Amino acid sequence: MVKPTTQELEFINSCRVGRLATVDEERRPHLIPVCYVFSGGIFYTPIDNKPKRAKPSRLKRMRNISANPNVAVVIDRWSEDWERLGYVFVSGRADIISTGGEYRRSLGLLEAKYPQYERMNLGGLGLPVIKIVPDRLVSWGALGG
Amino acid sequence: MVKPTTQELEFINSCRVGRLATVDEERRPHLIPVCYVFSGGIFYTPIDNKPKRAKPSRLKRMRNISANPNVAVVIDRWSEDWERLGYVFVSGRADIISTGGEYRRSLGLLEAKYPQYERMNLGGLGLPVIKIVPDRLVSWGALGG
Repeated sequence: MVKPTTQELEFINSCRVGRLATVDEERRPHLIPVCYVFSGGIFYTPIDNKPKRAKPSRLKRMRNISANPNVAVVIDRWSEDWERLGYVFVSGRADIISTGGEYRRSLGLLEAKYPQYERMNLGGLGLPVIKIVPDRLVSWGALGG
Repeated sequence: MVKPTTQELEFINSCRVGRLATVDEERRPHLIPVCYVFSGGIFYTPIDNKPKRAKPSRLKRMRNISANPNVAVVIDRWSEDWERLGYVFVSGRADIISTGGEYRRSLGLLEAKYPQYERMNLGGLGLPVIKIVPDRLVSWGALGG
């Protein structure tokens, strides 16, 4: 578990998209943009209902996490003014959750952050959530507004 | 080597930032936002002169590539209108280049894409460039403007 500073926390909570990296059995990375929430020191990112290349359990990120729970997330802000660039990087271990109180709570937080999810009914579809417990957090650049 | 469609190529060339994932010897991923150019089927991303946590050869991405050349890049566009989301994902092998014609040509392309680099004098500082030859390209979503 890591403890972000107030500024890191505000940056994490204000950003709308992160990128999640996983690693396969051949030590090759995979990465994709993800929606996420951060709560109680833990990241939650859903397998949502946007069109996908495979059903949830066959998705590359899910197969990678099953074989190797080490993951990383970067949340960054781009600007043409490079004095305003900033990012938060976390690495940690991932679990898949799809039932229980923590699962339902994470869906509620995701729906509160992303109105787009209210129409999707993630929980009703039984779609899993990737839970990431960070063991390292690094930030860089200008995190302030 | 992969051959992007015209639409994939336009998307890659129009985006300003990508995210690069590398993998360390413990099979843990690392990832960071990167500036890049794509030319002749190859990605080039510089170790530029923005403030860094370490000198070039000690940067995590460089140590990871030395131990394991498997890398991935995702280039994506975020929108609150999820009908407009899109990304291009590539995986491939990375090399470090810091001399020669291909190196100097990549610096010229980077300076042409990013006016910010003109002030940095990447080549004069001898800063290396990560060269990525993709062996797989996947795109998703709405790549068109």
